[in-house]
Amino acid sequence: MDDTKYVYDFSEGRADLKHLLGGKGANLAEMTGIGIPVPPGFVVTTQACIEYEKRGAFPDGLEAEIAAHLAILETATGKGFGDPMNSLLVSVRSGAVVSMPGMMDTVLNLGLNDDTVVGVAAATGNPRFAYDSYRRFIQMFGDVVLGVDSQHFEDALIAKKREVGAAEDTDLTSDDLKDLTDRFKAIVDTHTGYGFPTGTVEQLHLAIQAVFRSWGNHRAKVYRKIHGIPDDLGTAVNIQSMVFGNKGDTSGTGVAFTRDPSTGENRFYGEFLMNAQGEDVVAGMRHPRPLEEMREVMPASYEQLVAIRGTLESHYRDMQDIEFTIEDGTLYMLQTRSGKRTAAAALRTAVDMVEEGLITKEEALMRVDPAALDQMMHPRLDASAPFDALTKGLNASPGAAVGEVVFDADTAELRGDKGDKVILVRWETNPDDIHGLVKAQGVITSHGGMTSHAAVVARGMGKPCIAGASEIKIDMAARCFSVGDTVVSEGDWITMDGTTGQVIVGTVDLVPPQIDKNFEIVLGWADEVRRLGVRTNADTPEDSTKAREFGAEGIGLCRTEHMFMQEDRLPYVRAMIMSDSTEEREAHLAKLLPFQRDDFDGIFRAMVGLPVTIRLLDPPLHEFLPDYTGLMVELERMKHTGATAEQIAEKEALAAKVKALHEMNPMLGTRGCRLGIQYPEIYGMQARAIMEAACDVADEMGEAPIVEIMIPLVGFAKELEIMRDLTVKIAEEVLAERSASVAYKVGTMIELPRAAVTADEIAPHADFFSFGTNDLTQTALGFSRDDAEGKFLTHYIQNDVLKDNPFEKLDQGGVGQLVAMAVEKSRAVKPGIKLGICGEHGGEPSSVKFCHRVGLDYVSCSPYRVPIARLAAAQAVLEDRGAATQGD
Amino acid sequence: MDDTKYVYDFSEGRADLKHLLGGKGANLAEMTGIGIPVPPGFVVTTQACIEYEKRGAFPDGLEAEIAAHLAILETATGKGFGDPMNSLLVSVRSGAVVSMPGMMDTVLNLGLNDDTVVGVAAATGNPRFAYDSYRRFIQMFGDVVLGVDSQHFEDALIAKKREVGAAEDTDLTSDDLKDLTDRFKAIVDTHTGYGFPTGTVEQLHLAIQAVFRSWGNHRAKVYRKIHGIPDDLGTAVNIQSMVFGNKGDTSGTGVAFTRDPSTGENRFYGEFLMNAQGEDVVAGMRHPRPLEEMREVMPASYEQLVAIRGTLESHYRDMQDIEFTIEDGTLYMLQTRSGKRTAAAALRTAVDMVEEGLITKEEALMRVDPAALDQMMHPRLDASAPFDALTKGLNASPGAAVGEVVFDADTAELRGDKGDKVILVRWETNPDDIHGLVKAQGVITSHGGMTSHAAVVARGMGKPCIAGASEIKIDMAARCFSVGDTVVSEGDWITMDGTTGQVIVGTVDLVPPQIDKNFEIVLGWADEVRRLGVRTNADTPEDSTKAREFGAEGIGLCRTEHMFMQEDRLPYVRAMIMSDSTEEREAHLAKLLPFQRDDFDGIFRAMVGLPVTIRLLDPPLHEFLPDYTGLMVELERMKHTGATAEQIAEKEALAAKVKALHEMNPMLGTRGCRLGIQYPEIYGMQARAIMEAACDVADEMGEAPIVEIMIPLVGFAKELEIMRDLTVKIAEEVLAERSASVAYKVGTMIELPRAAVTADEIAPHADFFSFGTNDLTQTALGFSRDDAEGKFLTHYIQNDVLKDNPFEKLDQGGVGQLVAMAVEKSRAVKPGIKLGICGEHGGEPSSVKFCHRVGLDYVSCSPYRVPIARLAAAQAVLEDRGAATQGD
Repeated sequence: MDDTKYVYDFSEGRADLKHLLGGKGANLAEMTGIGIPVPPGFVVTTQACIEYEKRGAFPDGLEAEIAAHLAILETATGKGFGDPMNSLLVSVRSGAVVSMPGMMDTVLNLGLNDDTVVGVAAATGNPRFAYDSYRRFIQMFGDVVLGVDSQHFEDALIAKKREVGAAEDTDLTSDDLKDLTDRFKAIVDTHTGYGFPTGTVEQLHLAIQAVFRSWGNHRAKVYRKIHGIPDDLGTAVNIQSMVFGNKGDTSGTGVAFTRDPSTGENRFYGEFLMNAQGEDVVAGMRHPRPLEEMREVMPASYEQLVAIRGTLESHYRDMQDIEFTIEDGTLYMLQTRSGKRTAAAALRTAVDMVEEGLITKEEALMRVDPAALDQMMHPRLDASAPFDALTKGLNASPGAAVGEVVFDADTAELRGDKGDKVILVRWETNPDDIHGLVKAQGVITSHGGMTSHAAVVARGMGKPCIAGASEIKIDMAARCFSVGDTVVSEGDWITMDGTTGQVIVGTVDLVPPQIDKNFEIVLGWADEVRRLGVRTNADTPEDSTKAREFGAEGIGLCRTEHMFMQEDRLPYVRAMIMSDSTEEREAHLAKLLPFQRDDFDGIFRAMVGLPVTIRLLDPPLHEFLPDYTGLMVELERMKHTGATAEQIAEKEALAAKVKALHEMNPMLGTRGCRLGIQYPEIYGMQARAIMEAACDVADEMGEAPIVEIMIPLVGFAKELEIMRDLTVKIAEEVLAERSASVAYKVGTMIELPRAAVTADEIAPHADFFSFGTNDLTQTALGFSRDDAEGKFLTHYIQNDVLKDNPFEKLDQGGVGQLVAMAVEKSRAVKPGIKLGICGEHGGEPSSVKFCHRVGLDYVSCSPYRVPIARLAAAQAVLEDRGAATQGD
Repeated sequence: MDDTKYVYDFSEGRADLKHLLGGKGANLAEMTGIGIPVPPGFVVTTQACIEYEKRGAFPDGLEAEIAAHLAILETATGKGFGDPMNSLLVSVRSGAVVSMPGMMDTVLNLGLNDDTVVGVAAATGNPRFAYDSYRRFIQMFGDVVLGVDSQHFEDALIAKKREVGAAEDTDLTSDDLKDLTDRFKAIVDTHTGYGFPTGTVEQLHLAIQAVFRSWGNHRAKVYRKIHGIPDDLGTAVNIQSMVFGNKGDTSGTGVAFTRDPSTGENRFYGEFLMNAQGEDVVAGMRHPRPLEEMREVMPASYEQLVAIRGTLESHYRDMQDIEFTIEDGTLYMLQTRSGKRTAAAALRTAVDMVEEGLITKEEALMRVDPAALDQMMHPRLDASAPFDALTKGLNASPGAAVGEVVFDADTAELRGDKGDKVILVRWETNPDDIHGLVKAQGVITSHGGMTSHAAVVARGMGKPCIAGASEIKIDMAARCFSVGDTVVSEGDWITMDGTTGQVIVGTVDLVPPQIDKNFEIVLGWADEVRRLGVRTNADTPEDSTKAREFGAEGIGLCRTEHMFMQEDRLPYVRAMIMSDSTEEREAHLAKLLPFQRDDFDGIFRAMVGLPVTIRLLDPPLHEFLPDYTGLMVELERMKHTGATAEQIAEKEALAAKVKALHEMNPMLGTRGCRLGIQYPEIYGMQARAIMEAACDVADEMGEAPIVEIMIPLVGFAKELEIMRDLTVKIAEEVLAERSASVAYKVGTMIELPRAAVTADEIAPHADFFSFGTNDLTQTALGFSRDDAEGKFLTHYIQNDVLKDNPFEKLDQGGVGQLVAMAVEKSRAVKPGIKLGICGEHGGEPSSVKFCHRVGLDYVSCSPYRVPIARLAAAQAVLEDRGAATQGD
């Protein structure tokens, strides 16, 4: 006999049992505990779900527990489960630990059968309501529990309506609906081979099992993958006595946020529908009314709701997303949970709640998802660009986007995977569309509201969404949509502005987003808390300036190869590469020197007083030469099109040089310090340009940046030793020539596994290490990024071989071990060595937190990720302290 | 005051002070100690050299010690150092801890000046001898100590001979020679700006310093690099009273080996010259006579020498290489050391000495350099090939070679580096030619004997050498040589047989070498001692059979890609790759299956009863398709040469597929298990072919090999999990179909750093790991072998950035750490996991020893390296025991 407790009454539960009760169940219990009106019920735990998944059957004892709690429920409601005269009806809903809205299944009105429906009709005096509930129940149960395609029921409903000449569902009489329940039961018989289950306990057991199984369905798995939710949590199941918002004009239902989820403004914000079931609102099937209007329609319930709003915010100390139903004038709360919100709203509520004394600054910092800050920095429409909006919908998720129109999620995914920018245009989205939403730039729906599926999901992803753009008529057969006379076909370019709801034909220029006061306040708090420094990866004065505005405390990686690629110097670079002697090479490098000095000059001005890490030339030289295949094809063409022998000879000489420099695996070839060691004159020129520029800036501005010269691709201590000697020699020469005293350091990237495991040998020659986790990932995993993404890596992620793209999230289990090893080994021999990271992981929150834990001194990331890194770094400290816990 | 003892009299020293006295000094002391006649002398220690290198001056106290030991020497010889009437003359010779023949400098006859030369003339009654010694001393001292180019002295000698009409040096009279000493002193004045030093103590101090400095000269450094001798050992200096073999017909000098250094035969083997200095023999300046002839010429000395030979072998328990001089009928031993020998001789002496009871089997094993076994397995001339020898020289180092003639070491190096096969043809070689010898297939000299520089060095390297091929006349200006009327120009192909001394114009087929009884005996002993298993890397039945003959205990790596490349299946392979669907791919794979089964069938037959590790397909698919550049050029050509639209379209389709599969860095792309996961049908076909072949062989031969299926390029445990499931599924299918029970295992290569650091996660899914140290070196170091060797890696080794090629010798400091980590982590979770190595390092002695120390179960290497690995594995055990120490 299993002694585990698998079932909790709402009155037994608490919010801190969320791991067992799921979010919804724990919150229903919590609300029950603080005296908020909740229809009574009980929760079957996530643990029961996990056991069910393992065994394929209920764990021992579960049925008995359910029976006991049903009895309690009968007592509480004064009704009997299956009692034909006074029937207890229940809802059966999933409730995962981490909210997965709309992802799993729900069954309403459970407890109805041919006997109890009669009792319900009698008790309510409303046979139409009873049979309407019954036919909905059969359809929902048939679909969710028995696996009968909903379309069969829809078809039967349409047929019935046609037979009786009903325009709307509401035109059907109770007899029509009674007939429909018979037809629905026949559909179940036909498609399952056995009768619709009439025993209410059997119904309940089957429904609970169906919810358990829904944890493993495809769309739930996709959702979890996207949101990083573990697969082994299981879902709880909430069994709750039904209340009905569709009992007439004193009934209704609604959803609300305790604050505005788009802006974070402290106002009660929601929608309601009179005489409707809750699912009608969430599914966006009918157009709901703004919550304010309820004040006039049902003033008592409205006042009660406002009071509950206050109670919930005080209790939960966070903005809540609630669902309620009014049955015959009595208000019931069906759900409360932390409300999903835009980044701007997250920041505003966090800041407001600190000011209101509801939460501490530390809690506020934990409330904001660093990745969501991206949204704050998304592009907007260029205000000066002239355009006419084609139509306007609800501004469901902010930000602007440009893309080609697609009409289904599969096409969105296909095109998006190819790197195309697409905008998904749908009548409405549902959980099956997730994969397309992920790959689209934005989403437009012609139906639904601010709380519709598309809106909620898009806000979560930080993508623009326009909902309920009802002028848009979609013709799926012709694969186009029209607004009036304007027809927009699949593949046409449009622009959308989720901040205003405008849809525009063609492309409109986008401008970078701006940052509001709350953004600055929260990041200011983050700066007070974090230990990690945050620098930026920037190669231009513009990027440097932008990053400094975003709070970058210096440059962690300034790449110099882009400078070589610019049109005005490429001829010198190529001449340098084609040189046959050191002297010739030096002559061409001398011509490049002034360009390089200018490059650094601008960056140094932008970063005066801060450290600037400049990586010397990294890519193999052949990257600066024309493509070999192109040259050979061109040569063949010249031979057939009358080119002179001289022209051919010249082209052949170039081709020969390109061939001589060609590499099988350039990633692992003559690049980085291998270049510097073979051609010390190249690194020498760069070191000179850097130091001369630093001296110039110090002269003119009275202060220099802190110059950090970084030698790439060191694998052996000796390489750094040689390159350090060269760099110091040149630097001292320049300082002596200029009689200047600019501080400089020499360090290296740790981007090869060998460098990581021999960090104790390399550290004595380095003032700093910067972990180049892009290349370290490539070499440690043997993944060429160019060849992996879109090819085998994509296949791996789609097929669950890998959970995440290791180029986006640092592979802590593999690459992370190498980083940790290098930190430990280098600090053992040189405790004061400065350690940073400059791979793209430096702006990804989970990776930033890893960098904190492993003891790095700073992270460096692209300018737009600097705020994200600042916040993640603060959260890492708070997580370390264990003081604060992150909201739902 | 420094209390260190820097000087040891020969009577104070012992062989176990070799680290201080150097090899030569320690052995002179040892011989003195056991009563063998050695001219008295003393040794300045290696420690004094190291101090001198650091300070640039003698350490404190050294001069006083030298003076004290000079006084002892004067007493012992009854002569005075600088005494004009009875002058003590000394030799000053370097003596490193590890023998470096001819690498450093020597000064003879030191102590002569204008005064003492008169005394020597008077004391010997031989003024010609006195002045001949003096002029030789000035030249040698001028060259070695004062840095005056020897050529100046040679020119003066030639001028003098011309003036007096002397054909040979011996035609010069004592007056001529006296005049020559004046001219030589004048040359020193001119080229140094100061006079030739006349103080004998000053001469001695300068000479000792010159020897110290010679430790750091270029050719010594090159020699140490080639032979892996540390740079910080320093050299000792031996100061020994001179004896003269050139005092007339009762004097002479010679060199000998206590056994035949070519064959190992237990016979006294050497050469001598009457009335000559020792250097005349070593330098090959005069043609010496076989040692046997000394029995008749100087019977007493010969008998004494034979007795000493026995004493030395009993004492040293090893074959000795000795130098002796007879002065006026008195025999003196000037040197003894372990004799360099061919691999065959090393094996024979080792076996003979065990049989003679001189040494133990374990000592015998430590006496044989594993790398030298290569020599035993070198190619020979095909005996059935008809050829006429152009000429014949001495068979100085065995083995045959074919190559293009080159005439200088620089050209040999240049061509050799390009991968060309060259044979270096010289009048004679000297230590400055080492870099060319390293890169040549073999060396032929027209001068010198079996103990000449070229012969000694070539034997050490295991390369064929023909010495003293005196019919060969070299014309350096015309860059050709002639034998009679036949002219062979630089770049012409010749064949040489170092075993017979034959030189052949053109190329002769070579056949693989054979293995003698001693080879088998020693390897048999090695097998008794070693713990490591030794397998082979073999892809064909032929290689498998050969390797089993060489003692391989199974196959550690059978690559399957070569099988795909064979002409008869390439069309199917290409069709498979070009397939658009899994079904189409499977159809083509079905056609490949019988081929694959046949491939494995032959290998399995050769390895019945032994483990055979088969690696599933590893390279990216584009390797099986034509080159993209070639296709594009061909397409361009077709467009200009009237190809039909249809032909062009077909070519374009192929080009498109090649382009789609093209990878920037194929080394890090879709290969190994990444292929297997994307196209399970490919690995499935291979697994089926393997298991079917194993069943067939088991049926026919009553026994199967132990099948080990190896999944390449695993970086994540999940990859292996998936591939293991597939492999086991197919294997069980085949076994069920055949009702067979063939044992099979599934394992993986550890060839990515991530795999090494997560070995504890991967091990649960693997029956075995095989370290693929080629790829592990590529990824850990970020070195693409294709792009490194001959390019930056060559530059690195030439410029001392790296000591060794990490693809030849395992990089123990970097890659080795990853291997050790993986061993530890995998054994921690699966103590019984079988661990091996299948990179090329598996046949390199230092790497094999590393594999032993780190606890691997076996190494696998190419067939011809199997014997080397067997011996190295035994030595690793003995080194572990510390019981035996390796010979000099």
